[in-house]
Amino acid sequence: MNQDRRDRLRDAAIAVLAREGGRGLTHRAVDAAATVPTGTAKNYFPTRDALLRAAAERCAEQYHAPAEALAEPGPERAAGLGAGPADAAQLAALLAGLLRDTAGPGRTRVLAYLELQAEAARRPWLAALLDPVAAADFAAHAHLLRAAGLPAGPERARALTLALHGAVPHLLTGAPATLAAAGLDDLDRFTRELLATVCGEETR
Amino acid sequence: MNQDRRDRLRDAAIAVLAREGGRGLTHRAVDAAATVPTGTAKNYFPTRDALLRAAAERCAEQYHAPAEALAEPGPERAAGLGAGPADAAQLAALLAGLLRDTAGPGRTRVLAYLELQAEAARRPWLAALLDPVAAADFAAHAHLLRAAGLPAGPERARALTLALHGAVPHLLTGAPATLAAAGLDDLDRFTRELLATVCGEETR
Repeated sequence: MNQDRRDRLRDAAIAVLAREGGRGLTHRAVDAAATVPTGTAKNYFPTRDALLRAAAERCAEQYHAPAEALAEPGPERAAGLGAGPADAAQLAALLAGLLRDTAGPGRTRVLAYLELQAEAARRPWLAALLDPVAAADFAAHAHLLRAAGLPAGPERARALTLALHGAVPHLLTGAPATLAAAGLDDLDRFTRELLATVCGEETR
Repeated sequence: MNQDRRDRLRDAAIAVLAREGGRGLTHRAVDAAATVPTGTAKNYFPTRDALLRAAAERCAEQYHAPAEALAEPGPERAAGLGAGPADAAQLAALLAGLLRDTAGPGRTRVLAYLELQAEAARRPWLAALLDPVAAADFAAHAHLLRAAGLPAGPERARALTLALHGAVPHLLTGAPATLAAAGLDDLDRFTRELLATVCGEETR
C-alpha cells in the first residue's frame, strides 16, 4: 500500500468528519474527498471503525508535533520555533495564537477532533487512542508556565489546560452571547486575564 | 398533537443521540426508542433538523431548570434546594456533585448535549438555540461564587466555568491518563483545588 495515498485518505477522513460529522463518515465520502477511485478507502480501511482509527491517528500525529515541540524543547525547536515564552505576556500571546488557529486555519482538524472525542465516549478503543493526546496537553502547559517564569504547580496547569479545552467548542460554534460571557470575543485579553487568574495577581 | 407523546419523542431523540451519536439520529430510531408506532416521530418532527431542534430544546429545558434555580434563588429554591453554598467548601461539594452527575445519572443528557454542540458548529440555527444555555452557565457560576463569599469578578467566573466545561468531555470519555493528568480522578479534591486556584490562595 502506498503511504502517500494512505495519508491522503486519512486527511480526507478528517475533512469529512469536520464537514459532515460522524454521520457523514462513509468510505464513499472519503473516496470523494480524496478524489480517488471509488473503493480505495475501503481497500485501505475496510470498516468504519478503521476509518475512525485512521482519522484519530492522523489527528494525534498532527497534534503531537507542535505539542512535543512545546513540551520538550530540543534542537529542532531551538532552530525553528524560538526559545519559548520568556514571560507572561509572551505566553498570553502564544496561547491567543493557538486559540485563533482553532477558530481559523486549524478549524477542520479541531472539529474532527471534537467529533472523535464524542465517538470516544462510546468506543473504549478510541478513548484509549486519544488518551495520551489529551493527557500530553497538561504537561505541555505546565512546561509553558515554567518557561514563562510563572507558578506551574499541577493545580495551575490543570486549571489553565481545562479552561482552554473548555474554550475550544465555544470558539468553533461562535455563538455571540457565549463568546461575550466567556470573554472569548477578545482573545488577547482573554489569555492575559486567564493567566492572571490562574497564576495569581502578581502576573497582572 | 399530544404533549406527552411529544415529550416522550424528544426524550427518545436525546437517548438516541447519546447512544449512537448524530449518525444514529433517524426517525425510525426515535420511534423505536420511544416505543411508538413507526412514522410517529416523522409526524411530529418531519425533518432531521426538526429532530435535532426537538432534542436541543429539550436539553435546554432540562438544563435551564437547575441553572435558573442556582442563579436566581427564589421561593422554590429556598424550599427545595437549601440556601446555596455558604462557603468555599460547600461550593466545592456542590460542583463535585454536578460533575459526578455528568459521569453518572446525567450522562445521557450531557452526551446528547456534546453531540448537539458538535452539530452546532455546522448549523447556525442550532448554535443560536444553544447560545443562551451556554451563556447562562457563566452567570450561574458568578452567582455561586458570590453566594459562597468568594471573589466573583468576571475573570474568575469565566476561568471556573470554562474549566468545568473542559472537564466534561474528559469525564464522559473516562480515559485514565487524561483523568489523572486533569486531577479528575478525585472530584472532591479537584473542585476544592480548582476554586482555590481560581479564587486565590486565601480560599485554600
